Amino acid sequence: MSLIVQKFGGSSVSDAEGVKRVAQRVVDTKNQGNDVVVVVSAMGDTTDDLLDLAQQVTTKSGPSRELDMLLTAGERISMAVLAMAIHELGAPAQSFTGSQAGMITDGVHGAARLVEVRPDRIRDSLENGNIAIVAGFQGMNRQTRDITTLGRGGSDTTAVALASALDADYCEIYSDVDGVFTADPRIVSAAHKLNEVSSEEMLEMAANGAKILHLRCVEYARRFKIKLHVRSSFSDLEGTWVIPTESDGDAPDLTKEIPLEQPLISGVAHDRTQAKVTIVDVPDVPGYASKIFGSLNDAKINLDMIVQNVSTRSESRTDISFTLPQDQGDAAIEVLKGVQAEIGFADIEYNDAIGKLSLVGAGMKSNPGVSFHFFDALSSAGVNIDMISTSEIRISVITRADLLDAAVRAVHTAFDLDAEGEATVYGGTGR
Amino acid sequence: MSLIVQKFGGSSVSDAEGVKRVAQRVVDTKNQGNDVVVVVSAMGDTTDDLLDLAQQVTTKSGPSRELDMLLTAGERISMAVLAMAIHELGAPAQSFTGSQAGMITDGVHGAARLVEVRPDRIRDSLENGNIAIVAGFQGMNRQTRDITTLGRGGSDTTAVALASALDADYCEIYSDVDGVFTADPRIVSAAHKLNEVSSEEMLEMAANGAKILHLRCVEYARRFKIKLHVRSSFSDLEGTWVIPTESDGDAPDLTKEIPLEQPLISGVAHDRTQAKVTIVDVPDVPGYASKIFGSLNDAKINLDMIVQNVSTRSESRTDISFTLPQDQGDAAIEVLKGVQAEIGFADIEYNDAIGKLSLVGAGMKSNPGVSFHFFDALSSAGVNIDMISTSEIRISVITRADLLDAAVRAVHTAFDLDAEGEATVYGGTGR
Repeated sequence: MSLIVQKFGGSSVSDAEGVKRVAQRVVDTKNQGNDVVVVVSAMGDTTDDLLDLAQQVTTKSGPSRELDMLLTAGERISMAVLAMAIHELGAPAQSFTGSQAGMITDGVHGAARLVEVRPDRIRDSLENGNIAIVAGFQGMNRQTRDITTLGRGGSDTTAVALASALDADYCEIYSDVDGVFTADPRIVSAAHKLNEVSSEEMLEMAANGAKILHLRCVEYARRFKIKLHVRSSFSDLEGTWVIPTESDGDAPDLTKEIPLEQPLISGVAHDRTQAKVTIVDVPDVPGYASKIFGSLNDAKINLDMIVQNVSTRSESRTDISFTLPQDQGDAAIEVLKGVQAEIGFADIEYNDAIGKLSLVGAGMKSNPGVSFHFFDALSSAGVNIDMISTSEIRISVITRADLLDAAVRAVHTAFDLDAEGEATVYGGTGR
Repeated sequence: MSLIVQKFGGSSVSDAEGVKRVAQRVVDTKNQGNDVVVVVSAMGDTTDDLLDLAQQVTTKSGPSRELDMLLTAGERISMAVLAMAIHELGAPAQSFTGSQAGMITDGVHGAARLVEVRPDRIRDSLENGNIAIVAGFQGMNRQTRDITTLGRGGSDTTAVALASALDADYCEIYSDVDGVFTADPRIVSAAHKLNEVSSEEMLEMAANGAKILHLRCVEYARRFKIKLHVRSSFSDLEGTWVIPTESDGDAPDLTKEIPLEQPLISGVAHDRTQAKVTIVDVPDVPGYASKIFGSLNDAKINLDMIVQNVSTRSESRTDISFTLPQDQGDAAIEVLKGVQAEIGFADIEYNDAIGKLSLVGAGMKSNPGVSFHFFDALSSAGVNIDMISTSEIRISVITRADLLDAAVRAVHTAFDLDAEGEATVYGGTGR
């Protein structure tokens, strides 16, 4: 008998029909002789509706403790309704809030981190023959016993954390997409589904804009060696298995040959949510970088790519560029203006009409031809490159936003990722 | 400095505007130098919407544990939004679920009884200068730690129980009605608001169909000597004070004169939700009554008035009539059919086209003229009486449903309760 954790996003439970379809799948899994723990997000538009309601009574951002209290009503509704739908099919089910399921967090409302998972009540419920349903995205602050939410990707994280704490055989992440694709099928019609990907590659893809799994969930799965099965709740097709790599954290073993069935390249990820900031004409004296990045860090601004060029204007001066989420752009500029006089740079340029494209693949690190082939493809497609950043298994570039789709298609074709026929695409993703 | 508990029903927080209006009132109360605990029901139609959703996934009644989990999302939403609206006005507020507020119950999902109230977190929150907001209607089963709901009148009960546990100065029950009226203003346009009523009289009025306060809340307030102030959240008018009587549970002190300001009669209550069952031609032998009422009791059927007449057909036989809630009619008839052969009665008659009218007043018990005057008024209005039942401070009669309004008006006028001008009427009441 296996213990399986199944996570269903908001698009899988967007209405009563969706809840019933999920209930049937859960009961089928149970009837195949498995213990099943289900993690569920809020139904469809519930979260947006609750946020709308909050905005009707408050002009400021509102107290974050209360916003968490409000939003957690969303999973409370979906989990209770799912439990009812499962009962309707003749199987016993019990729903549990994050707090009841022992999801203990720190006190950062809206973006709490799990500090411990104590699923005693879930274990008891399973032992009593129930299907246990757990509210995703939520937890409880150990110190104050206040309700918290885990922020973006929270429900995926709940599922992986529970899978780890319960020593589950694997964790299935259901959404409205069939699995992990070599590129976004909405942009590249010839994109195809990967049957298997390493958690390391998945990490790079998630970090670079592939939205199917949240970075944090992949990090958690990789760290705790949880096998993920990413699949669609709208079909019975096998999805993509994300397999924890053996040598996590260690240097890659370059003496080992890449297995034949291992593709050189896993896929092309892209991201439209970033903006680029360039700090112009920074005096090239010791300590300026720590001042700039220290002050941005104090303001909790998440930088992604950072590049430094020699200034075109002066040899003793330099330009520094970095990317960051667009919604943090204003905050970053404010921080930088605050230190402009002290550091003595000339100007701040801001551009959010950019796109980021990343090529990911474990085979890349041992094949020096990949970079050439990659830049050649972009050049042939007429795509200028703004910034470049690389890791062992990834190359990322920043392009103009309006050229991003063409760039993704060019790279996908250049690396022979195009499949026969077209991929199936559904809309939206849950939290 | 006073500690005041304020309870707002669903009609007071039916939308964002309502929430803001309530927030302003709460902050005003706080700014007058009071500690304030707010108990809030689910917003407007939330509960009905959630029930609709449940019915879309389940054909049966569904597991009651999960239904409670679902419904409690309603107050979670309203209390968090209210806390935000209060913050917006510059006052600190924290919301608490029933479980967090220490509302400990038994395990009867959907109709749980409070077994203990431990509002430690509410006290702490008040001490830290907050307005504490508590979800009405909900609690936690001490044994299983499952979430429960208190059933009908639950939010009122939460408020009174908290007022008692926190030793509050008084408890304000806000709705869309200005207070307790001498009769339903929708039927009797000349009905007027009472400034004060004893909890004993309020108990009789609530038990006999006055819907402004739930019986259970009045019982609780009377037992724990909590002063209630029943008023409208749509105006600043004083409402009706419900004052705990001194001699609770003891026999009324008939030597004491009724104070001059104490009206002979408090008001006229009515109820359209009852049905009448008559068991025809019951053999008049010992033990038949215990068999009949024992079996009805086993089936958890709530009987109200019970009357026994001599049968018109035989001297050794009798007819027994009782009233009960209409929605328990089918169940009662089934129970009675099950014992018909054993007891040997002839037939069961069922009638739900009935109305119940009650005249309530503490002055009644020492004034033998009241009954005569009451029946005379009904007779003059052409209203036939089906059943009669009386208590120390109440006379109730069953009439034909279509004559109930006329009967209420006739009695209201006969006892000089008619006010100058017309009463203001609003729609609906919360839970």
